[in-house]
Amino acid sequence: MLKIVILGTGNLAKHLYTAFLKADGVDVVQVVGRNQTELEHFSEHANFSNDFTSIEDADVYLIVVKDDAITEVSNYLSNKKGIVVHTSGATDLNAIKPENRGVFYPLQTFTKGKIVDFGSIPICIEAEERESLETLRKLAGSISQNVHHIDSEQRKKLHLAAVFVNNFTNYLYGVGEELCLEEGLSFDLLKPLILETAEKVRTISPKEAQTGPARRNDEKSMESHLKLLNNKEHITLYKLLSQAIKQAHEEEL
Amino acid sequence: MLKIVILGTGNLAKHLYTAFLKADGVDVVQVVGRNQTELEHFSEHANFSNDFTSIEDADVYLIVVKDDAITEVSNYLSNKKGIVVHTSGATDLNAIKPENRGVFYPLQTFTKGKIVDFGSIPICIEAEERESLETLRKLAGSISQNVHHIDSEQRKKLHLAAVFVNNFTNYLYGVGEELCLEEGLSFDLLKPLILETAEKVRTISPKEAQTGPARRNDEKSMESHLKLLNNKEHITLYKLLSQAIKQAHEEEL
Repeated sequence: MLKIVILGTGNLAKHLYTAFLKADGVDVVQVVGRNQTELEHFSEHANFSNDFTSIEDADVYLIVVKDDAITEVSNYLSNKKGIVVHTSGATDLNAIKPENRGVFYPLQTFTKGKIVDFGSIPICIEAEERESLETLRKLAGSISQNVHHIDSEQRKKLHLAAVFVNNFTNYLYGVGEELCLEEGLSFDLLKPLILETAEKVRTISPKEAQTGPARRNDEKSMESHLKLLNNKEHITLYKLLSQAIKQAHEEEL
Repeated sequence: MLKIVILGTGNLAKHLYTAFLKADGVDVVQVVGRNQTELEHFSEHANFSNDFTSIEDADVYLIVVKDDAITEVSNYLSNKKGIVVHTSGATDLNAIKPENRGVFYPLQTFTKGKIVDFGSIPICIEAEERESLETLRKLAGSISQNVHHIDSEQRKKLHLAAVFVNNFTNYLYGVGEELCLEEGLSFDLLKPLILETAEKVRTISPKEAQTGPARRNDEKSMESHLKLLNNKEHITLYKLLSQAIKQAHEEEL
C-alpha cells in the first residue's frame, strides 16, 4: 500500500484526492492545507490538518499548491523520508528542497465540480532517484494508463504547448461567442464545430487538417471577413493567424 | 417525397448525398458535376451527369461547389421551378441568379472519408419566399434536428466565427504539435487536453473557462514561456493572445 499525503486544498488537490480514494493500492493518509473551510471537503475519507509542522509519514508527499508556494511548502518536508513531488507543469524539479524529490504533472484542464476520468489523462513523472521514479510510476499507474517519464525541460515545453492548445484556443472560442452574440445568435451553433475540430486531430495531423480562406490564400474571403470585424484586437489576430497559416502552406499553392 | 438534385462532386456534396440517401421523404434524383471520376462515386444510388444543360426537374437544387462558381452553376437553373440553394457560409443569397433561391449551410467541418452524423449539425437555412423556406426546413429536418433560419448577414458573421473556432484553433493545435516534436514528445500527449478544452465550453462560457498565466497576469510564467519559443510568429502570437486575455480579464485582477 502506497501512503500519500496531499498538501493543498485547491481544485487539482480535490480532483487528485477523489481519484486516489478510488485507486487500488493507495492510501490517502492526510490532507494538509491552510484553508480550514476547504479542508472540510476532505474530512470524510482522510485525516486533515492545517498545521504544516505535523505532517504524517508517507511514501509520497504531493505538493498541490500555486507554483510560487511550492518551495515554501517543500521546506516543511525536509526531514521526511518519502518522495516530495509537485504537480506543476511550469516549475523546475529543484524548486523542491528535500533531496528525494520528483514531479507528478497531470496534463489536463480541471474544472471545479466536474468529475474527471483520470484513466486517459497523461501523467508526466520525473525523479532523480531511480527507485523514486518507480514509486511515482506505480502511483500514477494507479489512476491512469497514460504515464510518461518526462524531464523538466520537456515538461516546460509541454506546458507551453498546453497554453497554445488550451488557453489560447479557449480565447478563440470566446471570440467566436462574441461574434455570435453581436448577431443575436446562440454560441450553441458553434459547439458541434468546436468539438469536431478537436476530434479531427485525433487521427489527422493539424497541418493536414487545416482548411479555410488562409490555407487557400483566398484573398477575397479574407477581405470580407476583415470588414465584418470591428474589434481592433480581433482584426490584428485575424491578420496574424491568416498570415501564419498562409506561410505554413505556401508551398502547396 | 422531396426530389433533390445535387450539383457538385466534392467533399461536402458526397457527405450530403450519403445523408440524404438515408433520409426519409427525400429522393436524390440526380447528381451533376464536371468531374467524371468523382461522379462515379454517386453512381450506385443516383443518376449522374456531367451535362449541366440536362438537369432533371426537382423540388430543390443544391449547388455544392466552390464559392466563386455558385453564380455560374445557378445560371443553368434559370428555367427551373424548384428552389435553387447554395451551401456556402460566406456567400450572399443573391449570388444565385434564379428567383426562387435560398441557402442551405451546414455549419461543420467535413473530413474526406470520415462518416458524419448530420443529426446534431446546425443547418442554417434562408429563402426569400415563405413557402421555399418551409421546404428547406423540411429538407434540413430530414437529416438534422438542429435547423436554424438565419439571414445572409448573420450567416457571414457565423462563418467568420467558424474561422476563429475552427481554422485558427486548428493552427494553434499545429503549434502545440511543433513544440512537442521539438522535444521529441508525441502530440498524443496533448490530445486529451484538446478534447477537454472543447468539451468544457459546452457547459461553461469561454470567458469563465479561461485559465492560464495571461488570465492571472502571471508575468514570470509568461516571460519563461517566451524564452522557450524560437519561432518569431509563435512569439508574436503568444504576446498578442496573452495581451488579449489579460485585457479581457483585467477587471478581475
